[in-house]
Amino acid sequence: MSRDCSFLRDLPLSAEQVSFATEDRAEFGTDYGVVEADASPPDAVVYPESTEDVSVTLAAANERDVPVTPYAAGSSTEGNAVPVAGGITLSMERLDSILGFRPDDMQVDVQPGVVGEEMDAHVADEGLFFPAFPQSAAFSTVGGMIANDASGIRAVKYGEVREWVLELEVVKADGTVIEVGTKARKTSAGYNLLDLIVGSEGTLGVVTRATMDLAVAPARTLGGRATFDDLDDAAAAITEAVRAGVDVATIELIDPLTAEIANSYTDAGLPPVPMVFFELHGRGVDREAEVLSGIFERHGARRIETSEDDEEMTDLWRARREIGRALPEYDPDRVLDVVGDVTVPIGSYPEMIRFIGEVGDEYGIPIPAFGHAGDGNAHYAILVNRDDPEEVDRAHEAAETIVRGAIDRGGTCTGEHGVGVGKRGYLTREYDPAVLSTMRDVKEALDPNGILNPGKIFE
Amino acid sequence: MSRDCSFLRDLPLSAEQVSFATEDRAEFGTDYGVVEADASPPDAVVYPESTEDVSVTLAAANERDVPVTPYAAGSSTEGNAVPVAGGITLSMERLDSILGFRPDDMQVDVQPGVVGEEMDAHVADEGLFFPAFPQSAAFSTVGGMIANDASGIRAVKYGEVREWVLELEVVKADGTVIEVGTKARKTSAGYNLLDLIVGSEGTLGVVTRATMDLAVAPARTLGGRATFDDLDDAAAAITEAVRAGVDVATIELIDPLTAEIANSYTDAGLPPVPMVFFELHGRGVDREAEVLSGIFERHGARRIETSEDDEEMTDLWRARREIGRALPEYDPDRVLDVVGDVTVPIGSYPEMIRFIGEVGDEYGIPIPAFGHAGDGNAHYAILVNRDDPEEVDRAHEAAETIVRGAIDRGGTCTGEHGVGVGKRGYLTREYDPAVLSTMRDVKEALDPNGILNPGKIFE
Repeated sequence: MSRDCSFLRDLPLSAEQVSFATEDRAEFGTDYGVVEADASPPDAVVYPESTEDVSVTLAAANERDVPVTPYAAGSSTEGNAVPVAGGITLSMERLDSILGFRPDDMQVDVQPGVVGEEMDAHVADEGLFFPAFPQSAAFSTVGGMIANDASGIRAVKYGEVREWVLELEVVKADGTVIEVGTKARKTSAGYNLLDLIVGSEGTLGVVTRATMDLAVAPARTLGGRATFDDLDDAAAAITEAVRAGVDVATIELIDPLTAEIANSYTDAGLPPVPMVFFELHGRGVDREAEVLSGIFERHGARRIETSEDDEEMTDLWRARREIGRALPEYDPDRVLDVVGDVTVPIGSYPEMIRFIGEVGDEYGIPIPAFGHAGDGNAHYAILVNRDDPEEVDRAHEAAETIVRGAIDRGGTCTGEHGVGVGKRGYLTREYDPAVLSTMRDVKEALDPNGILNPGKIFE
Repeated sequence: MSRDCSFLRDLPLSAEQVSFATEDRAEFGTDYGVVEADASPPDAVVYPESTEDVSVTLAAANERDVPVTPYAAGSSTEGNAVPVAGGITLSMERLDSILGFRPDDMQVDVQPGVVGEEMDAHVADEGLFFPAFPQSAAFSTVGGMIANDASGIRAVKYGEVREWVLELEVVKADGTVIEVGTKARKTSAGYNLLDLIVGSEGTLGVVTRATMDLAVAPARTLGGRATFDDLDDAAAAITEAVRAGVDVATIELIDPLTAEIANSYTDAGLPPVPMVFFELHGRGVDREAEVLSGIFERHGARRIETSEDDEEMTDLWRARREIGRALPEYDPDRVLDVVGDVTVPIGSYPEMIRFIGEVGDEYGIPIPAFGHAGDGNAHYAILVNRDDPEEVDRAHEAAETIVRGAIDRGGTCTGEHGVGVGKRGYLTREYDPAVLSTMRDVKEALDPNGILNPGKIFE
């Protein structure tokens, strides 16, 4: 759908801030979830360098009912940042400054295009860190994390991104600039617009500045890995550890197939067996590790290794860390088509992991499962041969069966990746029509012309 | 303002569920913030016994533009539950059942009228507890806590109530029943309506069921008290402890005047000096306590006492625990007129505490200050002689000066009590008009006729 965006030439933006060139537009037609074959580039790209630039662009687009979709690193997995309705892509790449840092308040102010690990590097000298980064923080941006309410491996102890966002500057659809939230750590002052913007995938407003809360780097960190013979035992060990109140900072599970994939990529020489990776933070890590090891042993752990040495921890964790890179490389005939992130109540986690394996067997598709077990988040990947339409259909049916299984267990279709285009169909299963209609009412209230990232979240 | 509520007689409610009697209505005209002299009783009271009862009442009231205000324990401090526009009060007292408990998932389902400590008693046998209770949990209800996004003494470690609410059944203004949130611990599936309802003070919907997340009771608990000669030193010691990453479960400060008030009530025989109360949770409490004591000593602590024994901890904490009861009893000529809960970024906390004392001096009004120092939450109380209008005016000016001081330091007018009637005027200082107008747009989207708890939050 082509939109007339020539009005951008009349806005107070420099020539270097607006592009209609095919090669520039092409950069924004895909993300990690939308492959080249399904690319949907915008009609124009605007590169804002200030809040004002975002504001004038939105005001003009809003008057003309032209869609505007913000795009940061494009690391979203569900097409969240792809402008499926055409119009303008707002590339946030130039809004990449760290604006302020108040170590005494444990707060940092950043623009949305700041990359996660850059932010962490900036605050590390003061003994602080951002604890809610997703695994992609080496390239994903703070703006993208906020848009999808990302979380990642440390959510079991530290929670989601939204719990670490204090204040946001947001440009509304009509160009109005608002500042939601407060720099105080808690507030009950009026409606929580902050948490409405977080996770709204750029459909309610465009974030132009964020004040993030920070945590103190732990006094001690202990990392570890446990191998099991049986996947059920490994999953049960994790839920028991959480239920016993072991203060884990991360606790991750990978199934035998994922272990095989990761091992083949890393040459780690590890057996393809279920593995649990964990990290403990704090002055009592040795005592926590003792309790954790006891639980693992009772559940038949074959081998438990722990360390407080940085290099050794990195080594123990290698297989877990490389999954993201290993998966697309595993089978030259197959592309990574689905990366799921269903989340269920913790008591159902072992059952959910078992269910994913059963679905793989039923559909004759190997489905590696892994993920942030401590908060009930099960990741799974589906590799398919895109030249085999029957296999693609089967893969998608398998994926749907898994998501339905999670929702039927009281869970959610997405724990941290957001809805984008890919998960829209599941929302109608997860929520009653009255809930979705309330969400639409909120959308209508904040973006009456529907210009912000249309085609996402709602079908 | 009297409203015709006779239509209630025609609804499918029993005779025992509707009252127009003066003595019944009088029960709902006040709360902890609105005194008898300013009472504003409803025109009718409905006592729902089911979600359906709430739904039929709202649907009928909505058709007739009749205000409906939910009322639970009435422990709100800002008139939050007082029906200032008349109409119907929905008394939530009969919706007081615990509906389900899933220890494996660490979740409990409750109706809104369940009292905090009852919920805790129900889950304690399974080694679980609700960590975000306010100090009033012996009588305040889960519904009220959700309405105001309460928090209390353990927020520094465990966060606010909203972080422990997973799913809510909510009746919208037109009687539609929706279920927002998920039983999974995290989700990125669509707009976060859950956190929009939490803290909205019954102005966006009426909560009829809540699924709450629970924490595991700590393996070890250590309680303690430190006395200081100087208030500045005590406040600085706290901010340093937080900044150093000491894993405190609570850390509370009381100033010398508060100490005097609490001591006179408890006969504790303690000196009227600044005191810090703390609690540590986890397997490393002894090590954390050592670090904490070191920080206190460097800041000139006079005496530090700690214990892991229940009875001794209770004793150490007595002065802090009795403040709520001690304050109204302190001066027979004065009533407790203001209980403030401003919150500032943690780096500004010592300055804020000092500022409260300076305001007291400036206005010639003794203002005891205390509160949840670890998250920058400063409570203060103003006792006034209601027969002396000049003193009342002076007290209110002092209160305003304190709130303005908090907002000017990047803080919020209310950390946990909500806006109600009492704090409406401050929202216009805390937020830009465009933010308040966005809040109003959300209100309009969810409650177009404005029947839900009118007169609150917005001026």
